[in-house]
Amino acid sequence: MLKNDLLLRAARGEKVERTPVWLMRQAGRILPEYREVRAKMGGFKELVENPEFACEVTIQPVDHLGVDAAIIFSDILVIPEAMGLPYQMVEKRGPWFEKTIKCAADIDRMVVAEADGVRYTIDAIAMTKKELDGRVPLIGFAGAPWTIFSYMIEGSGSKTFSNAKKFLYTEPVLAHKLLEKITLSTINYLKGQIEAGADIIQIFDSWAGILSPEQYKEFALPYIARICDAIDEVPITVFAKGAYFVRKELGELNCQTIGLDWNMDVAESRAMIGNSKTLQGNIDPCVLYSDDETIVTKTKEMLTAFGPNRHIANLGHGVYPDIDPRKVKLFVDTVKEFRF
Amino acid sequence: MLKNDLLLRAARGEKVERTPVWLMRQAGRILPEYREVRAKMGGFKELVENPEFACEVTIQPVDHLGVDAAIIFSDILVIPEAMGLPYQMVEKRGPWFEKTIKCAADIDRMVVAEADGVRYTIDAIAMTKKELDGRVPLIGFAGAPWTIFSYMIEGSGSKTFSNAKKFLYTEPVLAHKLLEKITLSTINYLKGQIEAGADIIQIFDSWAGILSPEQYKEFALPYIARICDAIDEVPITVFAKGAYFVRKELGELNCQTIGLDWNMDVAESRAMIGNSKTLQGNIDPCVLYSDDETIVTKTKEMLTAFGPNRHIANLGHGVYPDIDPRKVKLFVDTVKEFRF
Repeated sequence: MLKNDLLLRAARGEKVERTPVWLMRQAGRILPEYREVRAKMGGFKELVENPEFACEVTIQPVDHLGVDAAIIFSDILVIPEAMGLPYQMVEKRGPWFEKTIKCAADIDRMVVAEADGVRYTIDAIAMTKKELDGRVPLIGFAGAPWTIFSYMIEGSGSKTFSNAKKFLYTEPVLAHKLLEKITLSTINYLKGQIEAGADIIQIFDSWAGILSPEQYKEFALPYIARICDAIDEVPITVFAKGAYFVRKELGELNCQTIGLDWNMDVAESRAMIGNSKTLQGNIDPCVLYSDDETIVTKTKEMLTAFGPNRHIANLGHGVYPDIDPRKVKLFVDTVKEFRF
Repeated sequence: MLKNDLLLRAARGEKVERTPVWLMRQAGRILPEYREVRAKMGGFKELVENPEFACEVTIQPVDHLGVDAAIIFSDILVIPEAMGLPYQMVEKRGPWFEKTIKCAADIDRMVVAEADGVRYTIDAIAMTKKELDGRVPLIGFAGAPWTIFSYMIEGSGSKTFSNAKKFLYTEPVLAHKLLEKITLSTINYLKGQIEAGADIIQIFDSWAGILSPEQYKEFALPYIARICDAIDEVPITVFAKGAYFVRKELGELNCQTIGLDWNMDVAESRAMIGNSKTLQGNIDPCVLYSDDETIVTKTKEMLTAFGPNRHIANLGHGVYPDIDPRKVKLFVDTVKEFRF
């Protein structure tokens, strides 16, 4: 049914003619076409909540960059909002929650969200799936429970997320209660995404790297495992940024692909994660600031390091907003032209 | 001469009766005594530039927390300022440079600083050394060249330091030129600190963890190595936060102690770094938000993990500003009372 199913085959560990490629944050930010749409819409959140526009900007990178997958334009913070904790996206400052979780009563007030609570993204997926017409797979996504939890406690981004971590140390029972609700909400939401047409799911644990190994194993990993176990309809990718200290444990998850950030050595990660998983990543996003020759060289070095099988090419982090789209295309084209 | 030289003996790998303990950021922030002094002074930078007050707040944690070392109250950004790039410390926002380094001419304008360019800190060290009267060793410090470089390019803190990293990719020759000047300035400055009385030196590479392993080996590690090679008067500690991927290489530096952050597994780090170095750290700073029992348990677990030799107890990061000083004292006392 899909004309280009390279990404799905690579995720499942099947043989591929060449390495598939896409970029985290490819929808939006860097493309002038996105900025045009956004100028009409007024804000990031308005775009997320409007299925027509979300669909449009989701497909833009497929048209303009030639990537092997589309990823639905949305935000990980739609889940706290659907649970009862609304947020705003403040220009140049990032997300901001007027209310945060402080006590048991706050957690009791949170509902387990249904996919319908994020209707706009579910609709955007259905619309995009139709619009894509099988050109490439569509990636659905959600934040990992710990990352969502950290925003719900902290109320915004943070250098240390010390309030969220403090909550884990001082209120472990309540923390587990909230993580449980987030996990159930996330499973409902991802099931809805898959029903609407998502071909593969990625779980983003953006703040994995600020937990100690011990806390990560108690408060983060088990909830990711629960999600992986609950979803068997499509392949799952887990990207736990900075969680180098649990690579072995990530390799034991019931998922198909593990994302690596740019700090993680490829050979070492492969040895720790084992051969049963596809790896995704992991060139330093700042490589795309380089001259063309360097981009080509570094991209080829990355492909060689990962080898021809069980690899999905990507950056080790979301593409940065001020990267020239021409450089992104050079990265994509280099992967697509490369042969082992 | 020193009444308590536990820290120096532990750094040199000599036998100690018990594990020495101090905390990064112990001078300032958490102590009400510090806040009192600061209220009189008006700002962080005024304090740094006033030797009497810097001396006073340096000694406070020795009096009030009973730590085994004092660390001079200063700031890593005194070096860019002495090189010709002044900065401000903006309340709740952090450091801010009006001008940043953009091109070759900017780098040419930077001077190699002499210790005299940071006279106030040198004077503060001499004064503190006298005032301490041999009670505990005095730690001098500087930022690692890459971290200093990143502020000089970026002009402030950053989530990604993508401008500084971009400079490494686009202007590697200029980057090395600036790193060279920073390194020479840092050596001069540290020699001045040692002459004034610093008993041991710590190099802070706060933004080590945002570089790829390859870039860290090209732009960061060689300059730290140069500093270590240039200083043989006193022991040196290198704390490269987040640089888990070069632990083996850190173990080969001509220094005595390697600091570990709270993500780094103790046994794994020991295996990578080898037995020729003392390790410093590394409990999660957020443990100090816990109840007393948890703090005692986690502190003892940490001590047991490191073992009785070649360990200096510390947090894995600077102590956070809202930690109760009573909890810090409990951490310190637990280390001091523990026997293997």
